[in-house]
Amino acid sequence: MPDQSRRDFIKTAAITAAGAPYLNALAPALGTAAAPHIATRRQAKPLGFAVVGLGSLATNQIAPALQKTKNCRLAAIVTGTPAKAVKWKAQYDIPDRNIYDYATMHRMADNPDIDVVYVVTPNALHAEHTIAAAKAGKHVLCEKPMEVSSEKCQAMIAAVKAAGRQLAIGYRCRFEPHHRELERIAHERELGDVRIIESGFGFQIGDPTQWRLKRALAGGGPLMDVGIYSIQSAEMLAGEYPIAVSAMQSKTDPVKFKDVEETMTFELKFANKISAYCSTTYKVNGINRTTAFAERGSFGLTPAFNYDGIKGWRSDGKEIVANEVDQFMTEMDDFASCIMSGRPTSVPGEMGLRDVRTMMAIYEAARTGKTIQLG
Amino acid sequence: MPDQSRRDFIKTAAITAAGAPYLNALAPALGTAAAPHIATRRQAKPLGFAVVGLGSLATNQIAPALQKTKNCRLAAIVTGTPAKAVKWKAQYDIPDRNIYDYATMHRMADNPDIDVVYVVTPNALHAEHTIAAAKAGKHVLCEKPMEVSSEKCQAMIAAVKAAGRQLAIGYRCRFEPHHRELERIAHERELGDVRIIESGFGFQIGDPTQWRLKRALAGGGPLMDVGIYSIQSAEMLAGEYPIAVSAMQSKTDPVKFKDVEETMTFELKFANKISAYCSTTYKVNGINRTTAFAERGSFGLTPAFNYDGIKGWRSDGKEIVANEVDQFMTEMDDFASCIMSGRPTSVPGEMGLRDVRTMMAIYEAARTGKTIQLG
Repeated sequence: MPDQSRRDFIKTAAITAAGAPYLNALAPALGTAAAPHIATRRQAKPLGFAVVGLGSLATNQIAPALQKTKNCRLAAIVTGTPAKAVKWKAQYDIPDRNIYDYATMHRMADNPDIDVVYVVTPNALHAEHTIAAAKAGKHVLCEKPMEVSSEKCQAMIAAVKAAGRQLAIGYRCRFEPHHRELERIAHERELGDVRIIESGFGFQIGDPTQWRLKRALAGGGPLMDVGIYSIQSAEMLAGEYPIAVSAMQSKTDPVKFKDVEETMTFELKFANKISAYCSTTYKVNGINRTTAFAERGSFGLTPAFNYDGIKGWRSDGKEIVANEVDQFMTEMDDFASCIMSGRPTSVPGEMGLRDVRTMMAIYEAARTGKTIQLG
Repeated sequence: MPDQSRRDFIKTAAITAAGAPYLNALAPALGTAAAPHIATRRQAKPLGFAVVGLGSLATNQIAPALQKTKNCRLAAIVTGTPAKAVKWKAQYDIPDRNIYDYATMHRMADNPDIDVVYVVTPNALHAEHTIAAAKAGKHVLCEKPMEVSSEKCQAMIAAVKAAGRQLAIGYRCRFEPHHRELERIAHERELGDVRIIESGFGFQIGDPTQWRLKRALAGGGPLMDVGIYSIQSAEMLAGEYPIAVSAMQSKTDPVKFKDVEETMTFELKFANKISAYCSTTYKVNGINRTTAFAERGSFGLTPAFNYDGIKGWRSDGKEIVANEVDQFMTEMDDFASCIMSGRPTSVPGEMGLRDVRTMMAIYEAARTGKTIQLG
């Protein structure tokens, strides 16, 4: 066995072992299991990724992370901005034939360099670009939130399934060692049953003209953008999806936030009687934490959701031991490993759909003042 | 000037200087200013306190704190339990003539040993005991929450006013140096304007038969008992009373919590556009913090509401410098100093009434799902 393959195998095995318990825990909660794409090849060479949408996330996080992956390589780009194409082509040595715009991306169907399309466009364009990629026969990794309505999420799932490919959502914290350690403490009941989760993520938004403040493109405000991290964190700790939500919203600047909420606080109720109390805002920096209160103590992360510098703590004084990793690297390597091995991703479109349904229920709860049940 | 008097003067002056800014800041928000009792005497000897209700708070905190005060002394007790009277009499050398039960406490009118009555009975008995003390011509320090309805609070204010005495509420954190330092950072805008406050206080309640779980005696659940600390903390940081509230409640054990809420999350909206997001629970231990998110950073206390061991932090890494004090000692010494000097207390009945109105609005908001305005 050549060295490269062996390293890949060890890595894949390790990721699979780590991923399995959570997937199993969630499996009964998933409406439809992700259709695994059973790979017939086992390739030694990394999978080619096409990055769609060259904004700051793609530029500052995803492209650099791709350079660190074992199973992936930056093969292609899709952008509507020619100047960005020139810059990326030069920086990453991308051949002209692998540079697309939104009108030409369907031609990827003829490009064997591309295995996976990573959709990093504004929320309300995810379905369009995911479906285009699926029709071109590619696997799709789609940034969170999956889309702005459950109908669009369902269309994405159907398109990727029809293509016989896999669809994963960019839930980077699922692959982050501190979050996984919290999940382990919760699931192994090391401090007893978790009873209450508190989580918050927010930041003070700048440029009032950006797409994140436009409902048509973003689908909502901080809830869709960063509140979703608290939902994910609560789901990891509870080991379930929420079955009901309550919510309150608040707005102090109706000009800047004419289109979307400014601050949202919400409760997620789980069938196992865990309640998660969450807050998200575009009003201030520094809200960035997740805490689990269990029978015999508490544990948490502060900050919890940054790209790096995550810090864990436990009330019993024991240390949270976890490596610092490039979360986008692990997220992409895991998805590539799933595709290579035929293992279904632990962050499937069904999870993205469920979270979009949860967020739509949170908006309804805030609007009506009622607790909204989730089927 | 004898040593004792000089120390008292220095102490009183320091407390007055520290108390003034907050009192001034809140003054416009108070519906009715507290009627100051202009003392005509300036006595060197400490004021005699009668403790009413000898439960664990009185036994473990208030009586020991009285031994540390400069301006107060434990002079009398009121209890319905003869065994407790025997124990306290022996431990604190209380003469028989200063031992009352609830039927005889009106006779305090003839007892010059008693200047102040400290009401530490269950919430729904505060009015009865406060009014009895006022009718006996005594000043009253009443534990929080002031009572279980705004009508009863108003009756208490009227009775003490008619007696020409002062009424203070046992808001110990108002006199706690870490809380005062947070208040200073907020009011001096050291990290810019505070925009969001997060605060939570809860604990896992034990004995299901205790009065705290009975609506008739407690008036409510964790909100009335410990959520009120978050309301107070938010008011200190905002420098105002809230003008509107939203709330959500949640119950996972309807047997234990058949009478009162189990967990409540609520938002306080202030006229200066600060929002405070608070949570309180009887479900878990460890929720105990207050955080202010301001324009240029955040600062807070974790834990925030314990009797000791309060720890402060600032996002800019500067230290929160504050002494550890016996909060009941400072609370009682401050009230005694107010009475001795004729200065109105900074924690008057009007503040207690306002917080009870806020809590009743929170219950209404949770019940109706609507934002409730406070006049």
